[in-house]
Amino acid sequence: MRILGIDPGLQTTGFGVVDVDGHALRYVASGTISTRHLGTGELPARLKVLFDGIGELAARYQPDAAAVEIVFVNVNPQSTLLLGQARGACLTALVTRDLAVSEYTALQMKQAVAGHGRAAKAQVQEMVKRLLHLPGLPGSDAADALGIAITHAHVGASLARLGQATVLGRSTSGRYRDGRTR
Amino acid sequence: MRILGIDPGLQTTGFGVVDVDGHALRYVASGTISTRHLGTGELPARLKVLFDGIGELAARYQPDAAAVEIVFVNVNPQSTLLLGQARGACLTALVTRDLAVSEYTALQMKQAVAGHGRAAKAQVQEMVKRLLHLPGLPGSDAADALGIAITHAHVGASLARLGQATVLGRSTSGRYRDGRTR
Repeated sequence: MRILGIDPGLQTTGFGVVDVDGHALRYVASGTISTRHLGTGELPARLKVLFDGIGELAARYQPDAAAVEIVFVNVNPQSTLLLGQARGACLTALVTRDLAVSEYTALQMKQAVAGHGRAAKAQVQEMVKRLLHLPGLPGSDAADALGIAITHAHVGASLARLGQATVLGRSTSGRYRDGRTR
Repeated sequence: MRILGIDPGLQTTGFGVVDVDGHALRYVASGTISTRHLGTGELPARLKVLFDGIGELAARYQPDAAAVEIVFVNVNPQSTLLLGQARGACLTALVTRDLAVSEYTALQMKQAVAGHGRAAKAQVQEMVKRLLHLPGLPGSDAADALGIAITHAHVGASLARLGQATVLGRSTSGRYRDGRTR
């Protein structure tokens, strides 16, 4: 399964693509989509850059699922609103391509990647580097996006285990999931 | 010129389509896009409904320009974030169809429609009904969206007047805009 992780932001949106095969993770790509060349008065144009950028990533890497960071509520309401609009453009780009979207908080990502929710940015970068066997530290936004993809990979593995347990549990009752008797 | 006005909201997004010919306004259509059939946990799906709904409106009515209300910053930061994401989906739907998007605050809309920024919702509905010669009161969300379209029509008329004044001013200097001498 290939996962596209997204860390949404109005100026810089991080992305990371990871392949998952059982417990094995493989790095595919990562980077950022920047709207810094556009002014603060050009919100619609900035959202289009994010939407188109994510569309290009989906077309190029053909992910099976997407995972998006649940953004922080900023102390400044105006910034919160801007961040919300950027995240809206990112989510829209994913769902209009019929990608299933899962959402994780930064806390969940840090727990999955570094083992505890209080991990600093540098620690997330270092752990992402180790988990994916990268030759160097990824940038902060890309690391967060890769971390979100890794989080989804972990959750997917857990759900698969749960699913197996359920199937096993049901099969002992003499019936398969679809109602056929053994 | 045909204007598509949008009043973005996560549960209900109002829309209004108005034709403008000089100072004459003509009502074309209005209504709402609702995501109430989807649960609060289905944010990506809700954003898709908004994006697709606005896409359908743009395809059906073929507007020349779009105008979107600048949403309120809510007292509740979480609501602000959700509203921002809804607005992001709406803006993205417009710019990906290469529509020029203008943005107006509720205050500007009320001034344009009712003559003062403190107008109540009912007053906006009444004034929109009068200005567009509607047989009945439009719903509150549709009225706001029509009001935003009317605001853009007024601003467009003012800009056109300014443009004419500039042309006239220039023509007295013996040159047309394109540099030809008289």
